[in-house]
Amino acid sequence: MEHCTTIRVRYAETDAQGIAHHAGYPVWFEEGRSDFLRKVGVPYSQWEAAGYFVVVADLHCRYLTAMRYEQQLTIVTRLERFRKRVIDFSYQVLDEQQAIVAAGETQHLIINANGRITALADDFYQHIRRYLGV
Amino acid sequence: MEHCTTIRVRYAETDAQGIAHHAGYPVWFEEGRSDFLRKVGVPYSQWEAAGYFVVVADLHCRYLTAMRYEQQLTIVTRLERFRKRVIDFSYQVLDEQQAIVAAGETQHLIINANGRITALADDFYQHIRRYLGV
Amino acid sequence: MEHCTTIRVRYAETDAQGIAHHAGYPVWFEEGRSDFLRKVGVPYSQWEAAGYFVVVADLHCRYLTAMRYEQQLTIVTRLERFRKRVIDFSYQVLDEQQAIVAAGETQHLIINANGRITALADDFYQHIRRYLGV
Amino acid sequence: MEHCTTIRVRYAETDAQGIAHHAGYPVWFEEGRSDFLRKVGVPYSQWEAAGYFVVVADLHCRYLTAMRYEQQLTIVTRLERFRKRVIDFSYQVLDEQQAIVAAGETQHLIINANGRITALADDFYQHIRRYLGV
Repeated sequence: MEHCTTIRVRYAETDAQGIAHHAGYPVWFEEGRSDFLRKVGVPYSQWEAAGYFVVVADLHCRYLTAMRYEQQLTIVTRLERFRKRVIDFSYQVLDEQQAIVAAGETQHLIINANGRITALADDFYQHIRRYLGV
Repeated sequence: MEHCTTIRVRYAETDAQGIAHHAGYPVWFEEGRSDFLRKVGVPYSQWEAAGYFVVVADLHCRYLTAMRYEQQLTIVTRLERFRKRVIDFSYQVLDEQQAIVAAGETQHLIINANGRITALADDFYQHIRRYLGV
Repeated sequence: MEHCTTIRVRYAETDAQGIAHHAGYPVWFEEGRSDFLRKVGVPYSQWEAAGYFVVVADLHCRYLTAMRYEQQLTIVTRLERFRKRVIDFSYQVLDEQQAIVAAGETQHLIINANGRITALADDFYQHIRRYLGV
Repeated sequence: MEHCTTIRVRYAETDAQGIAHHAGYPVWFEEGRSDFLRKVGVPYSQWEAAGYFVVVADLHCRYLTAMRYEQQLTIVTRLERFRKRVIDFSYQVLDEQQAIVAAGETQHLIINANGRITALADDFYQHIRRYLGV
């Protein structure tokens, strides 16, 4: 299951090399998965309202081609794994010609309001699964 | 009353013009007042622990000279006004030759845990005043 | 002359107060004027290609209501002044109910490739004016 | 060969979970290697002056413990590989108790002024090697 999100490189996201700074890509990945969850009908704000905070445990990003100010990019976000304790997403960043300019993966854990690692309760887990269609 | 904070321009803070992006300066001002409060003995984390969230209501910044990666800057932070409901700070950004490269002002309001504008309780206000020496 | 740009508050733009951090607003203003110039037909990348770098000389922002993750905002960008040496923009940030949640102004100077303050050449100035309809 | 860099979590680096946002860590890594190069005597600005732009080709980060506003962190930056075409760094982020709170690796390629992948010229390569002591 995957969803596409379109973004445009902001001037503030460029650096003195004249290209999009590499620390901006994790933010685009986050926008990709935010948009993914919103589109399937379980926006992340709903998770926090239910007491579940999804944190990033692992981030990997490969940079293939430099991007510049004003370029329009598509983030293709794919849900790779959905468990009660761990969630994996992968991402491809495409330019206007649909060439892959970057790719990455993130792994996420579930934290409760006290900041402790937890598992999604079965009813919330099943609720999300229905929307994800998995 | 004023305090000096030294920072160095990060590569991530530059933009495609090869200079420090203007949206980074408010972050440096924030570092300046964070450091100011820490140095006088009432770090901002202590305010939040007491239930007071200091928000920015107004920001003004003048940019005189462009700064570049690796330049070392001094933020001179001055407390201009301290009331139970409003706090004003001003800032000067100096380069290595002590020339002013930017200046600004921020105005702050006090918010409680419910997000409503409030006033500092008298005991907390007097506590802070003692540290500020005002 | 004004144009509207829609943005959504990114998670990365929030801070520990649970609201959009104040240093993100200048970035939204920049997106507003980038989008403005693109829509009238003279995208900023065209200015840099012509050897003109538009820098921020003055920034003012007033924060009226805190914004949160996922909220959709409209940036209303208005060109207030267009001269060969100075350009002024103003901004209003509206929430979904069209209430003003922030407002601001920026003043810009023109810099050449050597980093010196300059004026737009008359032909480029007239070219831009035609697109701006001023 | 490794060097330590001390940073303090900025308020602007926190997010609505009350912790340092994960996209800030790559910026700290960058500060770590900037500081590393400065300390060994070959600051990155010297590389760019020589026409070599070091870009990030791969980034990996593991997040073990959440960090909060004002916490002081140590970035331990280690040079893992130094070739004419590729440079690898690794990083450990330690808290005040010297516990590892995050770790990561970056891989870098050399780009010339035209944006093409290149190799360091032998004299520049040997010059850097002397400073690195490798």
